[in-house]
Amino acid sequence: MRVTVWNENRHEQKNPKVQAIYPQGIHEAIAAPLRQAGLEVRTATLDQPQHGLGGQVLDNTEVLFWWGHLAHGEVSDLLVEQVRQRVLEGMGLVVLHSGHFSKIFKALMGTSCDLKWREADDVERLWVVAPGHPIVEGLGEYLELPAEEMYGEHFDVPEPDELVLVSWFSGGEVFRSGLCYTRGRGRIFYFRPGHETYPTYHHPGVQQILLGAARWAAATPGPKPVRGHYPTLRPPK
Amino acid sequence: MRVTVWNENRHEQKNPKVQAIYPQGIHEAIAAPLRQAGLEVRTATLDQPQHGLGGQVLDNTEVLFWWGHLAHGEVSDLLVEQVRQRVLEGMGLVVLHSGHFSKIFKALMGTSCDLKWREADDVERLWVVAPGHPIVEGLGEYLELPAEEMYGEHFDVPEPDELVLVSWFSGGEVFRSGLCYTRGRGRIFYFRPGHETYPTYHHPGVQQILLGAARWAAATPGPKPVRGHYPTLRPPK
Amino acid sequence: MRVTVWNENRHEQKNPKVQAIYPQGIHEAIAAPLRQAGLEVRTATLDQPQHGLGGQVLDNTEVLFWWGHLAHGEVSDLLVEQVRQRVLEGMGLVVLHSGHFSKIFKALMGTSCDLKWREADDVERLWVVAPGHPIVEGLGEYLELPAEEMYGEHFDVPEPDELVLVSWFSGGEVFRSGLCYTRGRGRIFYFRPGHETYPTYHHPGVQQILLGAARWAAATPGPKPVRGHYPTLRPPK
Amino acid sequence: MRVTVWNENRHEQKNPKVQAIYPQGIHEAIAAPLRQAGLEVRTATLDQPQHGLGGQVLDNTEVLFWWGHLAHGEVSDLLVEQVRQRVLEGMGLVVLHSGHFSKIFKALMGTSCDLKWREADDVERLWVVAPGHPIVEGLGEYLELPAEEMYGEHFDVPEPDELVLVSWFSGGEVFRSGLCYTRGRGRIFYFRPGHETYPTYHHPGVQQILLGAARWAAATPGPKPVRGHYPTLRPPK
Repeated sequence: MRVTVWNENRHEQKNPKVQAIYPQGIHEAIAAPLRQAGLEVRTATLDQPQHGLGGQVLDNTEVLFWWGHLAHGEVSDLLVEQVRQRVLEGMGLVVLHSGHFSKIFKALMGTSCDLKWREADDVERLWVVAPGHPIVEGLGEYLELPAEEMYGEHFDVPEPDELVLVSWFSGGEVFRSGLCYTRGRGRIFYFRPGHETYPTYHHPGVQQILLGAARWAAATPGPKPVRGHYPTLRPPK
Repeated sequence: MRVTVWNENRHEQKNPKVQAIYPQGIHEAIAAPLRQAGLEVRTATLDQPQHGLGGQVLDNTEVLFWWGHLAHGEVSDLLVEQVRQRVLEGMGLVVLHSGHFSKIFKALMGTSCDLKWREADDVERLWVVAPGHPIVEGLGEYLELPAEEMYGEHFDVPEPDELVLVSWFSGGEVFRSGLCYTRGRGRIFYFRPGHETYPTYHHPGVQQILLGAARWAAATPGPKPVRGHYPTLRPPK
Repeated sequence: MRVTVWNENRHEQKNPKVQAIYPQGIHEAIAAPLRQAGLEVRTATLDQPQHGLGGQVLDNTEVLFWWGHLAHGEVSDLLVEQVRQRVLEGMGLVVLHSGHFSKIFKALMGTSCDLKWREADDVERLWVVAPGHPIVEGLGEYLELPAEEMYGEHFDVPEPDELVLVSWFSGGEVFRSGLCYTRGRGRIFYFRPGHETYPTYHHPGVQQILLGAARWAAATPGPKPVRGHYPTLRPPK
Repeated sequence: MRVTVWNENRHEQKNPKVQAIYPQGIHEAIAAPLRQAGLEVRTATLDQPQHGLGGQVLDNTEVLFWWGHLAHGEVSDLLVEQVRQRVLEGMGLVVLHSGHFSKIFKALMGTSCDLKWREADDVERLWVVAPGHPIVEGLGEYLELPAEEMYGEHFDVPEPDELVLVSWFSGGEVFRSGLCYTRGRGRIFYFRPGHETYPTYHHPGVQQILLGAARWAAATPGPKPVRGHYPTLRPPK
């Protein structure tokens, strides 16, 4: 399976704390365990030409991961539309953490995608509410992160097709933190954790979920659905 | 609107702590604010003849509330089937707290309806995750109960048609605590809080939710859907 | 309840066949029975200043109906964004027929909203698949239109929150033709029939569905959900 | 993957027309193409001891197919409960045609599962409404059966988690004919066609769907979810 991990890669350039945690960038931290599981993974970042997604990259991507935060507005509108078309044709999309406010996620959801947030080293426990779901295969009852940014409800997204994880925060909030959607032929998974100042993507449980998400989101092959003008097939009987 | 509040009414007979909180029984505590809002409310309990639901009671009930815990097994199977039929024909059903293990809820859900639980005076915060939903109209961001029994995921029920509330517990768990279902013509609302040793049903926010649930669950009037053998209507063209 | 019926109103200006069926325009044909049912209805059209939706019109609209076809591209992007914001805040939206390709519907759905179509005087039968739903209250088993444009699957929209009607066409196709969505606090209903060359909006069954849709889509009142930065409320215990 | 195909096998014993179409029984017609695809398939029938599902059969079954019609009432209630438990633990279940009225399907759905029907050699076209779904991978736009029994709406089942196929009948009806559910850890697929007097299970498109259904319904491995009494894990922080 061919995966592309896209990362804004800006925090890593200016915040020593983030550099210390992710010396090769968040994208490489996400990519490494996927590669180890046998997936074919490339990475792409905002400041590359065409944000690293030009040429045949999108056409050759079965699942795209997306991490962005500071610079959502710098992502080309044309590229966003290309990504959206590819998702509708069947490319999987895994949107991470602050990617909730990315252009691509907002375009596919149609809502504001707004939420509550707080940086206060909350403990986060992600509880599995769909125990038979392939994304959380083998995870157990919950995943605990000792410190993370808090995201709280109301999360303004469409009701998901499947709700897989719900987060508990020590400060008193909850959040729907693992959400599955189908749009066109494409599958979309939103996964909440991953603030840049915590080593979240080094956590084995998080890596396991991201691998499960890649496998779940990969397209079922098939032709483009027939649409447009449609003559009567034949008198049905 | 005609509402019937059904209660097992056993804890109240033998536990002085429960008697002190609900001297008229849990059913009367639930019924009183509904009556005050102008609804026509009767009550029924397990130890009445036919559990208080004989004769025309079910036929004259638009929304049935159900609280049970100790004696689910004593409820008549025939009555459970009558209640199920009435729900499928359009009677609303509001299942409360330990009613998750009632025969009627399990029969309508098809699953085990099992969950985690703990009596440890947890703080419970019920967060609104569907802010436009009529059941939580006017509630604000969340409802806090200073002490309640904990219920934790995985709650083994079908994915709800609408998820309205998610609970946070101070001990570290989450729970989907306000769930909407449609079965046949009937609407079902499951609402988590309400352990007998806490004054939950005296809480104004809880009373407001139960009133909203009664209004939401009330049947849309209409004839029974046509089913069974069906001749060709006429050559369609 | 305050309703605004928006219509492109272009076919009516140039096609005598459409003029004959809808001499006051499609918008007035839709508005008349809603007014008769006691709703407060204004109309608005594309060629009015600000498409007739400037000033306080949107703020004073609880449910907006939308009919467009030839000139989706002429609708102002700024207005579309304003309508989208109002839907997310709670305004109901009823999208009619060829409005499936309107900017506002596509923005809220996130998908292509494409489908099959054919103008061949197909018979259309709209079958009720959710008999207890308030939009189809009192409708019976199905609604038959003697001649309509055909729309066929695959209709590229998100899986609806509730599927209320499915159409059968004499030429051999089916279509999900009554779809309910919630986005933010707002409710959206898509209703398939209504091609300009047929007297569909004069059909009493269609008028009944549109009245039901207006009532269903009207907002539950309530404040804007709290989002953004969120300090710890207080130590929960 | 280990599959068990269960069949009532009564029509085949007394109706020469059915014998001529399915000389080895409907179960063998269903099993053969699954075996050819490499699945490990056993069959079981009503009149075998313990309906052929005793001993370790259920424990060793990953996906169970179910065809029944005349003798739903003769299926042991205890067995039905065992099958239900296995589904909730993760066994897939594919319910076929008149199995809509089987005890096991009704127990898992909670509704009447009633519908309209007519034996009149209707043409049936099953349209794909979820083109990216693995069950209909490679199927194209629709599947046409030249003659089948008609089933019509309203089909009294819970709104499915995913609606995959919708049938068109030449006599004027529609039917939701490919429905996906999750209950507990188990996946359930209902597939409409398959009346005993038509050679439906010999149709390559039908066989392809049944193979897709077997693969989709197979359980994700994993331990039983933790439920019941649950002490506080530890002070979360």
